[in-house]
Amino acid sequence: MENRIPYKIYLEESELPKAWYNVRADMKKKPAPLLNPGTGKPMTLEELSVVFCEELAKQELDNENAYITIPEEILDFYKMYRPAPLVRAYFLEKALGTPAKIYYKFEGNNTSGSHKLNSAIAQAYYAKKQGLKGVTTETGAGQWGTALSMACSYFDLDCKVYMVKVSYEQKPFRREVMRTYGAAVTPSPSDTTKVGREILEKFPGTTGSLGCAISEAVEAAVSQEGYRYVLGSVLSQVLLHQSIIGLETMAACDKYDIKPDIIIGCAGGGSNLGGLISPFMGRKLRGEADYKFIAVEPASCPSLTRGKYAYDFCDTGMVCPLAKMYTLGSGFIPSPNHAGGLRYHGMSSVLSELYDEGLIEARSVEQTSVFEAAQYFARVEGTLPAPESSHAIRAAIDEALKCKETGEEKTILFGLTGTGYFDMVAYQKFNDGEMSDYIPTDEEIAKSLANLPDIK
Amino acid sequence: MENRIPYKIYLEESELPKAWYNVRADMKKKPAPLLNPGTGKPMTLEELSVVFCEELAKQELDNENAYITIPEEILDFYKMYRPAPLVRAYFLEKALGTPAKIYYKFEGNNTSGSHKLNSAIAQAYYAKKQGLKGVTTETGAGQWGTALSMACSYFDLDCKVYMVKVSYEQKPFRREVMRTYGAAVTPSPSDTTKVGREILEKFPGTTGSLGCAISEAVEAAVSQEGYRYVLGSVLSQVLLHQSIIGLETMAACDKYDIKPDIIIGCAGGGSNLGGLISPFMGRKLRGEADYKFIAVEPASCPSLTRGKYAYDFCDTGMVCPLAKMYTLGSGFIPSPNHAGGLRYHGMSSVLSELYDEGLIEARSVEQTSVFEAAQYFARVEGTLPAPESSHAIRAAIDEALKCKETGEEKTILFGLTGTGYFDMVAYQKFNDGEMSDYIPTDEEIAKSLANLPDIK
Repeated sequence: MENRIPYKIYLEESELPKAWYNVRADMKKKPAPLLNPGTGKPMTLEELSVVFCEELAKQELDNENAYITIPEEILDFYKMYRPAPLVRAYFLEKALGTPAKIYYKFEGNNTSGSHKLNSAIAQAYYAKKQGLKGVTTETGAGQWGTALSMACSYFDLDCKVYMVKVSYEQKPFRREVMRTYGAAVTPSPSDTTKVGREILEKFPGTTGSLGCAISEAVEAAVSQEGYRYVLGSVLSQVLLHQSIIGLETMAACDKYDIKPDIIIGCAGGGSNLGGLISPFMGRKLRGEADYKFIAVEPASCPSLTRGKYAYDFCDTGMVCPLAKMYTLGSGFIPSPNHAGGLRYHGMSSVLSELYDEGLIEARSVEQTSVFEAAQYFARVEGTLPAPESSHAIRAAIDEALKCKETGEEKTILFGLTGTGYFDMVAYQKFNDGEMSDYIPTDEEIAKSLANLPDIK
Repeated sequence: MENRIPYKIYLEESELPKAWYNVRADMKKKPAPLLNPGTGKPMTLEELSVVFCEELAKQELDNENAYITIPEEILDFYKMYRPAPLVRAYFLEKALGTPAKIYYKFEGNNTSGSHKLNSAIAQAYYAKKQGLKGVTTETGAGQWGTALSMACSYFDLDCKVYMVKVSYEQKPFRREVMRTYGAAVTPSPSDTTKVGREILEKFPGTTGSLGCAISEAVEAAVSQEGYRYVLGSVLSQVLLHQSIIGLETMAACDKYDIKPDIIIGCAGGGSNLGGLISPFMGRKLRGEADYKFIAVEPASCPSLTRGKYAYDFCDTGMVCPLAKMYTLGSGFIPSPNHAGGLRYHGMSSVLSELYDEGLIEARSVEQTSVFEAAQYFARVEGTLPAPESSHAIRAAIDEALKCKETGEEKTILFGLTGTGYFDMVAYQKFNDGEMSDYIPTDEEIAKSLANLPDIK
């Protein structure tokens, strides 16, 4: 076994990035602004501050500053679980017999089990700094809710989580982790909000969706004194916080003279993909280097590969601002795919713009082939991956096998966003041969897209 | 926040220990030998090799060699998840307001979720080297079974796991992790073995115990061609492999000039405690340094604090060799304490001897206070601990609070053996206020001890 580059590269604590990187500053064409659904005009700081903490609203609107200093309190928390390792997948390379060099940035070494903690602690910090009582949010797979409950516990904030019903049922233990950190968890849609009651009436028996849970969480935030809403993906502020993933990865690559040719991430709302690629994209935008970026999404919820680039609501209940993004329509309720974190109808405006400009490629993969990759990876590399992360593994393996055919020694880097320890119901289905693939028909997607809001 | 010592100390890959440390070599009085239950004489290499791989049988009998080289193949595997971090618990210290300095060695950053992988990979390696088809074992909490299934998958060995029934039911997802790695899992007692059928007949409705699952796994091994039995704790060979924990900890301590006053570990069969303290105990035995060692066991299964130091069977079915150890009697079936990994009637012969000589202290703690410590630790330090590990956390917090009273700036080191991600049924009970404490009566223990084998 080659030993020049260690199996796991850990940066020193002192090498932890001191500022987040804002890719919007280097984008020639900026992502389209959020619009007020009432007026059709760009959301102002004042309007955004009704829903979000003020500092986060500022970050949401900031297309100019390339670096934003990470507050000391957040850096302290980051030291609990960061820098995260960049792993050389020696065992995977050997098992595949590929000449490719494979690396993955592993974000699963914390109790939330994913990268979500990077933004959760930032959002909790700004809420605390603003003197709020608490925050509300939605969670799909439960990773974001867990991360937020940990962050709120650290800053002694109240935490109300609306959890997509199908995940709430498939992952009862996630709920207990959140409760252990002091959060209140409600399955969504619920009868605790107006929008939840409406959705339940319209779609009885629905297993819920992220878009629907968002509507409930936003309503719960704006209808209570001292609360704001926080979101684990999609927003530009989240991509900003998640840039810590890419910054650490880039620092480790530079330190060991690793030059990735291909950078791969799973894509739901875009938090992980955006965070991982941001600094590399910055280099590409500035003409300093070139990379092939691949977004991997589930075939059951293919916003980039089969959606439309248009203004749409971020939530099913249509209470949120409008965002221009690749979308399947805010009414699209995906099949109960086990990668709960990827069951979102739209994609980050930043990534949507970059994709529209041809700076990112996208592909969709089917569930069974994703779990085949997951099991293979677990057995070879030791770590049992989250279903979401396994979309990236699938694509990385496919790229490595192409290299095996062509003999090319490409360097492939992917984001291993988290662990699958709370996804064993899905693994059980796979182990029992009972996993099914679902691909929406063109008619289904067309029907959902027919209801896009009428914005020129 | 003090920054001289980083929050997490990661040794370099090149600093990974190259040999295990065998504390028996430095013990003046050696641990009592395993006895053949038929003849009452010490087990020979030949006899042991019927049950264990030959190389492991040699390690079991080796009281002389202080260092045993770790084979390259095992070192390669260790690099997947080792060196494990030594964490300075700055947040815990601050929350407690103690002048004590607290450190923990964290063994949970791998998919088995615990330190068990350290010995699993060694035992699988020697089985493969001997040309065996597969191995059988028992598992309590499921950590050992998971670790072994990962190790067997790596070396392409068949893996049959007998899982204590109460854990099998409380932790269905553990079973799926093992299956994902290709293992076959059977709840114990089962009707697949003679000893299992006998136990079921004698104790219908039993929730099982480690001792009982061991009997089944041993029977399954010796009754099939090409199989051997492997065990995740108690045995001296296991403590040898687990010395990697202590060796890394000691190297990190020496590198940063950390001098522990108190070293704490949870104690079930002794694998973690023995592994953590071995090299430090070596220094103590050689008169080079002094430490206070504390073994922490559950009040529901108090082998050190309330058991007897005597020869006993290692298993309920009395098919294994006899070991001299602190024991509650091989017929002792502990209450379904949630710390499944600590539900064993006996204690490693090595640790029993050291304890008997007064070189280790022991205390027992009750379940509810253990979960209080677990929840507190999770909220303050971020990591959700395994119930087993939380016994050590309880004692570490208690020692740190003593320092707060006395003003002493002691350095406290404990082993955080793993994470509690598969223990959420237990956490749920705690969150719902439905956790109960159970302490066996003197009569119960006396009754169980009355059946000790008649060895002088």
